[in-house]
Amino acid sequence: MNGFVAAHRAEVSTAAGRIRPHIRRTATLTTDLDPDLRLKPECFQVTGSFKPRGAFNAVLSQMAREPRPIGVIAVSSGNHAQAVALAARTAGIPALLLIPEDANPAKVAATRALGAEVIQEGITFANREQRLLEVMGDRGFSLVHPFDDWDVIHGQGTAAMELLEDVPQLDVIATPVGGGGLLSGTAIVAKSHNPNIKVIGVEPANADDAYQSWKAGNIRSLGAAPSTIADGVRTTAIGARNFEVMFANELVDEIVTVTEDEIATGVRVAWTRLHIALEPTGALPLAAYLAGKFPKGSTGLILSGGNSNFETMAKLLGTR
Amino acid sequence: MNGFVAAHRAEVSTAAGRIRPHIRRTATLTTDLDPDLRLKPECFQVTGSFKPRGAFNAVLSQMAREPRPIGVIAVSSGNHAQAVALAARTAGIPALLLIPEDANPAKVAATRALGAEVIQEGITFANREQRLLEVMGDRGFSLVHPFDDWDVIHGQGTAAMELLEDVPQLDVIATPVGGGGLLSGTAIVAKSHNPNIKVIGVEPANADDAYQSWKAGNIRSLGAAPSTIADGVRTTAIGARNFEVMFANELVDEIVTVTEDEIATGVRVAWTRLHIALEPTGALPLAAYLAGKFPKGSTGLILSGGNSNFETMAKLLGTR
Repeated sequence: MNGFVAAHRAEVSTAAGRIRPHIRRTATLTTDLDPDLRLKPECFQVTGSFKPRGAFNAVLSQMAREPRPIGVIAVSSGNHAQAVALAARTAGIPALLLIPEDANPAKVAATRALGAEVIQEGITFANREQRLLEVMGDRGFSLVHPFDDWDVIHGQGTAAMELLEDVPQLDVIATPVGGGGLLSGTAIVAKSHNPNIKVIGVEPANADDAYQSWKAGNIRSLGAAPSTIADGVRTTAIGARNFEVMFANELVDEIVTVTEDEIATGVRVAWTRLHIALEPTGALPLAAYLAGKFPKGSTGLILSGGNSNFETMAKLLGTR
Repeated sequence: MNGFVAAHRAEVSTAAGRIRPHIRRTATLTTDLDPDLRLKPECFQVTGSFKPRGAFNAVLSQMAREPRPIGVIAVSSGNHAQAVALAARTAGIPALLLIPEDANPAKVAATRALGAEVIQEGITFANREQRLLEVMGDRGFSLVHPFDDWDVIHGQGTAAMELLEDVPQLDVIATPVGGGGLLSGTAIVAKSHNPNIKVIGVEPANADDAYQSWKAGNIRSLGAAPSTIADGVRTTAIGARNFEVMFANELVDEIVTVTEDEIATGVRVAWTRLHIALEPTGALPLAAYLAGKFPKGSTGLILSGGNSNFETMAKLLGTR
């Protein structure tokens, strides 16, 4: 293990201790599909996704540094928003979330229910980063970036740490990849556990910026917000720290893409055969596994969340 | 603990050892709904329901007795069929399932895929018991009753045994009740663990024969097959052994009924908030909990299965 991996792996252990009182140690499941398959269903995590692992580590780490933040701010239309709201409430500081106007009202309500202030007026997918900088300047709140942040990466790595505690002999480990927070943390943990584990990120073919960045050897951005039912990975580019972990240090072996039909099949198999109500983003690794896109061997899939849009679910169920 | 309870509790432990190589020890889950709630999601069990616990115990027990069965037979349109098929295949003997003609084709296919012979021609919900006796006489196969069988009751008790290993301090434990196999096994285990635990069975108001039997102090039958979306508990009467455990020995404290709307709410909350894809029958205890029908305290719900009819689920999710 090189020094880079070892240092970051130690930070994942520190994160695990820091967040333990606030998150669930989710179970590892076996299935009737394949005796070689192990699932880490983070839909059963607090707030329904893996995001609180990183958000708690980031907020609690910031609270332990000087100057202590007077509040935290984040941009998200989805699971990161709820995670930051919960972590801030737990830490006893205000949270401000910028959520695009066209976001799912149920997720906005869930974020508000966790005590966060939400600004939606005038926020779009396109202008949200610019508006974030303006509001941060006004308020003096501290940013909790959804993926390009070491504390977040270390927190997200705790899911793979638990999975490998439960199943030490994995040959393959796969996660969704959007900005790369979960995949970076997973890669650090998996490669420090066993350099021969294949670490694979899965993204929609319609949002293949990580695939392009892997092939090109530098960060590539999508020109516009991609169209995919996997709405948790619509980020247009991975982060600089994520690129450093995944590709510059070659801790990720492969990025696999899946079609919208393959994602829909993954969701349906999850619901009907595995009885896990995943959101499309959470089903990405399962979709790639079912499509035969992984190497053989003992395979662990981190299923990232379950907060599906109700209408999407009904549509997927009704149009088999 | 009286002798009746102690003797049957010992049989549950024996059953647990017997079936351990063949079933999953399902996880106990916590939720964001209520810190007092614990879930035992048997939808993650082999074949997607709790039924293999009893079926394996019955088939393996029969194989250890003389004369050894030359095959096993059962009547079921649902989860018991798949469980018996799998247990027989594991034991290396043929299984014959009588399944009503109007059963869900997916469940029939799943039963055949497990190597069982299926007879559907001329089988109806009304005549199935009579046809069973005729076919048993023809073939000389041994019956695996879905609930009125001590081996089945002891096997089903292993779910509550695991739940109480994980959460010893439960105040309330609830399961669905159809024929009473799961509830009987649960009651034996719970009352031997702590006589003060409230043991509650939940059934649809549209199929309230267990409620009527509890109130009357003797077994009451529904006049016809009840109409309920909880198709796993459409049995018209509980069994004699189940009555003996649950009501004659007073090991069950209460039978609670839920409306079809309450069941639908239970399914939707399971899918959208808990991210567990339950079948309506599996959601019965959650439905009663959400409707405020349980006493206060630390509460364990045994969620019996996840093999939903796809069209039912689409309808439930699409018509909120």
